[in-house]
Amino acid sequence: MVVNSNKVEDFSSSSNHETTLRVVTMPPPMERHSVCLPPKQATVQKLKHRLSEIFFPDDPLYRFKNQTWCKKLVLAIQFLFPIFQWGPLYSIRVLRSDIISGLTIASLAIPQGISYAKLANLPPIVGLYSSFVPPLIYSILGSSRHLAVGPVSIASLVMGSMLGEAVSSTDEPTLYLQLALTATFFAGLFQASLGLLRLGFVIDFLSKATLVGFTAGAAIIVGLQQLKGLLGIVHFTSKMQIIPVLSSVFKHREEWSWKTIVMGIGFLSFLLTTRHISMRKPKLFWVSAVAPLSSVIISTLLVFCIKSKAHGIATIGYLPKGSNPPSSNMLLFNGHYLALAIKTGIITGILSLAEGIAVGRTFAALQNYQVDGNKEMIAIGIMNMAGSCCSCFVTTGSFSRSAVNYNAGAKTAVSNIIMASAVLLTLLFLMPLFYYTPNVILAAIIITAVIGLIDYQAAYKLWKVDKLDFLACFCSFFGVLFISVPLGLAIAIGVSVFKILLHVTRPNTMVLGNIPGTHIYQSLCRYREASRVPSFLILAVEAPIYFANSTYLQERILRWVREEEEWIKANNESILKCIILDMTAVTAIDTSGIQTMSDIKRMLEKRSLHLVLANPVASVMEKLHQSKNLESFGINGVYLTVGEAVSDISYTWKAQE
Amino acid sequence: MVVNSNKVEDFSSSSNHETTLRVVTMPPPMERHSVCLPPKQATVQKLKHRLSEIFFPDDPLYRFKNQTWCKKLVLAIQFLFPIFQWGPLYSIRVLRSDIISGLTIASLAIPQGISYAKLANLPPIVGLYSSFVPPLIYSILGSSRHLAVGPVSIASLVMGSMLGEAVSSTDEPTLYLQLALTATFFAGLFQASLGLLRLGFVIDFLSKATLVGFTAGAAIIVGLQQLKGLLGIVHFTSKMQIIPVLSSVFKHREEWSWKTIVMGIGFLSFLLTTRHISMRKPKLFWVSAVAPLSSVIISTLLVFCIKSKAHGIATIGYLPKGSNPPSSNMLLFNGHYLALAIKTGIITGILSLAEGIAVGRTFAALQNYQVDGNKEMIAIGIMNMAGSCCSCFVTTGSFSRSAVNYNAGAKTAVSNIIMASAVLLTLLFLMPLFYYTPNVILAAIIITAVIGLIDYQAAYKLWKVDKLDFLACFCSFFGVLFISVPLGLAIAIGVSVFKILLHVTRPNTMVLGNIPGTHIYQSLCRYREASRVPSFLILAVEAPIYFANSTYLQERILRWVREEEEWIKANNESILKCIILDMTAVTAIDTSGIQTMSDIKRMLEKRSLHLVLANPVASVMEKLHQSKNLESFGINGVYLTVGEAVSDISYTWKAQE
Repeated sequence: MVVNSNKVEDFSSSSNHETTLRVVTMPPPMERHSVCLPPKQATVQKLKHRLSEIFFPDDPLYRFKNQTWCKKLVLAIQFLFPIFQWGPLYSIRVLRSDIISGLTIASLAIPQGISYAKLANLPPIVGLYSSFVPPLIYSILGSSRHLAVGPVSIASLVMGSMLGEAVSSTDEPTLYLQLALTATFFAGLFQASLGLLRLGFVIDFLSKATLVGFTAGAAIIVGLQQLKGLLGIVHFTSKMQIIPVLSSVFKHREEWSWKTIVMGIGFLSFLLTTRHISMRKPKLFWVSAVAPLSSVIISTLLVFCIKSKAHGIATIGYLPKGSNPPSSNMLLFNGHYLALAIKTGIITGILSLAEGIAVGRTFAALQNYQVDGNKEMIAIGIMNMAGSCCSCFVTTGSFSRSAVNYNAGAKTAVSNIIMASAVLLTLLFLMPLFYYTPNVILAAIIITAVIGLIDYQAAYKLWKVDKLDFLACFCSFFGVLFISVPLGLAIAIGVSVFKILLHVTRPNTMVLGNIPGTHIYQSLCRYREASRVPSFLILAVEAPIYFANSTYLQERILRWVREEEEWIKANNESILKCIILDMTAVTAIDTSGIQTMSDIKRMLEKRSLHLVLANPVASVMEKLHQSKNLESFGINGVYLTVGEAVSDISYTWKAQE
Repeated sequence: MVVNSNKVEDFSSSSNHETTLRVVTMPPPMERHSVCLPPKQATVQKLKHRLSEIFFPDDPLYRFKNQTWCKKLVLAIQFLFPIFQWGPLYSIRVLRSDIISGLTIASLAIPQGISYAKLANLPPIVGLYSSFVPPLIYSILGSSRHLAVGPVSIASLVMGSMLGEAVSSTDEPTLYLQLALTATFFAGLFQASLGLLRLGFVIDFLSKATLVGFTAGAAIIVGLQQLKGLLGIVHFTSKMQIIPVLSSVFKHREEWSWKTIVMGIGFLSFLLTTRHISMRKPKLFWVSAVAPLSSVIISTLLVFCIKSKAHGIATIGYLPKGSNPPSSNMLLFNGHYLALAIKTGIITGILSLAEGIAVGRTFAALQNYQVDGNKEMIAIGIMNMAGSCCSCFVTTGSFSRSAVNYNAGAKTAVSNIIMASAVLLTLLFLMPLFYYTPNVILAAIIITAVIGLIDYQAAYKLWKVDKLDFLACFCSFFGVLFISVPLGLAIAIGVSVFKILLHVTRPNTMVLGNIPGTHIYQSLCRYREASRVPSFLILAVEAPIYFANSTYLQERILRWVREEEEWIKANNESILKCIILDMTAVTAIDTSGIQTMSDIKRMLEKRSLHLVLANPVASVMEKLHQSKNLESFGINGVYLTVGEAVSDISYTWKAQE
């Protein structure tokens, strides 16, 4: 037999299809290749492989392979305490960068620490305690070089809202503090367990889209809650939905204090201007970095000078000197608030984890190193568990402070140590200076911080690129605003999961045609040059065939066949004889899917239509084989490519004529 | 430029690869085709297409296209009332078959109706009412020709268990009946709404695997509960878990009545034997079909004859004569049991729908006609809503009776009308005959019916073919046995959804190699003949790239690169220069996925590795384009096939040398 094909005799790699195609009438026939079953594996072996893909996708122990015992020990220590990895290589030049960046973030961390503690309805000093111990622990255990650790707005606000709805921080301050510390402990326990059990992928379900909406919603509520401080209102709701917050603002209009308002608006404008400058010119990042501390200093001086006339302005008041007191005796492991503490811990834990890991990854990608998600979780978890025993509340890597850290030239986690030392000095010697610091300045700092969290550009991009991602974002935004923080999050995660399910439930199917002169088969409606192959209907299914879509696919495939037959009738084409199912994108099949395949085959056979499969993937082949359904297709019913199937079947027909 | 390739000069369509391959050193070079974006569509148009695929995948109105108004009206009537479609074609010959099958299923329906009503803790007469009105309605609205309609075991049992836990059927029989009718109304409303809103795919989430486990678990509990009747126990738990049921059986051993036990075991053996015979020889299906009615007759006669000595044997007692009384005034639309009625309605509704639709589809497939799922739901829903106003409880297509119907030669829904007429005659004239029917016989009939529901062979097949499907089956089985019916179902659906999510969260990735002499690239570990292409790493991803897997894929791809580089180092191969990502099976991408793609590209570029894409599907191309990420790959970075990518890039390298 001689190959009868006019081949393309010229070929130029970069030129386009239309220009190079010279003489093409029919693709050259193809030899046939058999489709392999995957190599046989015992169930245990398969399970082992599957579990290692689920829990150890990054093969964390690859460095230990083929090493001596001594080397393995060193590697293990470095693995557990990354400080021993970069510590020995540390140099004075690097230290200089780290000192500068450490002091810069300290100037940000002190006012933010105090503010975020107030956000969580905790004494301001707890915010400073939380900026001292956790950064030290992280610098030993953490693998990110740029993460600046401390309290963050989202976690503080969620903790404040969840605990505040059950216990009043003003009426029962001790119980409230106990609950906050207990929640911190459980947050850490949860975080460390996720890391140890290598379940880090759980936080992947908080997609970027969900977080954009959630953060914006939370930011708006927090911003509005700061009106309490900004307007000097004394009686304010502890609820977290937008309606009670707004009604609180306008119900107590008689409490508004003009002095506070003037001061607040002044400093707010100052902070927003510095923020704007830094955003315009990234080199001037330090302007916004030092602005909070300078605002605190200036406002404190101001209040101190006019103290006789400033009785309308609330100030922080007395703060005890000294470093973190031990607090392990304050953890509550029984009583009927335990469930609340655990729930709060888990939600703040997962949120702070999501922020910390995302921030760590962002800066790691910028500097081209990798952060091990599971190891980071263990580090953050231990840091919070230890923190809960030293009067600290939930901490993690903060986006704003890490960005300042990165811009200020931080090279290693030593910048965290420098920051912690600066906070320690403040705790030991500078506490009385905060006596006259007005609360309104803290409100202004928080508002400035949360405004940056409303990323409307990201939301617009979501809308443009992916409508369902936008829906998840939209749901989490309004869920948080109008319902509650945990429910808003749950709804958004539900929408994200629904998106995956919808994709599986209603997969794309399409008719393929041949691109002339090749063995390539592509979608007819996408590629104009693709042409139908007479007597064949080539269908591609773009999803695994599961219980959730097997009924749909059966109906849809039969509809394609019906429509094809109607089209053939209307156009007097040669009758349909064979349906080829391109299984390349059918990445899995389950028992319902297998049943459907055999149903479709039987139904088509009753109409004298031949069904063959092209390129089933390994797992699909295996399951068809195990369920004895492969036999019904026979060795001749499964092809390696659509091209081979068309070529082989046409040849058989010709031979039969 | 001249093409330098040694082509395969011989080719035989059916022979194998190894035998035909003669001279192959390098595949012939390929011309390059550009990758198209899908045709542009407005957002509204896209949404319209997407929604029509979600809600109207079967294009139900296609028959109406290009028809006159008059014809459209006729078609519409036929569409709404299928009886007008097959009615005009009805013949006497078909009627004979339908009469035989109708009478056969009536002989099964009467004892089953009474038994299943007892299963739902309802008066036995309600079971007969439910075998009269609903079949008549279904025969007008339904599109299946073989479905035999009436009460079914699963729905009855679930209704009995859910209502029975809140209201006692013996202490408050009227309230209980009212709740049962209300639940039936809501079941019908729910079913019809699902159909009208075209949300029929909801029942697809009750996968076969889930139902196998659920049915078996429910069957065991129901079977054990029948020990009440079989042993003659008077005081019995109304709970549905296995432990209270078993303890009820053994706690009241003094109530066991030996007369009842002897009679029960006798008839049970008789029924099981007939069932066994019919299963062995499908032609003798009538043996098991008439066995229940004959058992009822024989046992009634027996009790009647020995009535003076049979005071230990409980009988049905007085049943009122006459057809269904209206009951619309008994529906409760307020009061604090409304929530329970709605919940019970939804769960029994979805379960009976799943059974009805599955049975309808099974017999439709056997006879090669199609059943429209959404239309069936509307029919079943209306039937139940109407039923709730005529003293009927939840009904649907029963598997056992439909099988008998099919085997007895039913041709159309007329067999349902015949059955209903037979039930009507019974209701009008034969009710006093049931006075002496012993309860124990009903228990024996139920036990025989539910034993058939334990499909251990299906469970074994699930284990063999798909371990995760087996897990769903296992969870629903034990969930129902030990926790409760709704929770068991919820857990099983959760496991099924988890399976889909797991597949997306941890997708398969693999390294491809070239099959010599072709442009085909296949998995290296599956195809031994496939060989690595020097300087290239060709990776295929077998899942959409979503938020749930983007982190994993990034880590996994970087690990593949690392392992490839280590392998190259160890084997002194030519260095890695280009990574080709085969996107054929990446059927969708979201914003997180796009971010990951650009992150991977940037990270690889920092290591001087070139990343190109092969065959991205339409939606992925579109999203990469919309998010402006396509530009970063450039026109040269996206190829139609892996073969073209390898060919083109190698040629460019050669030209640069």
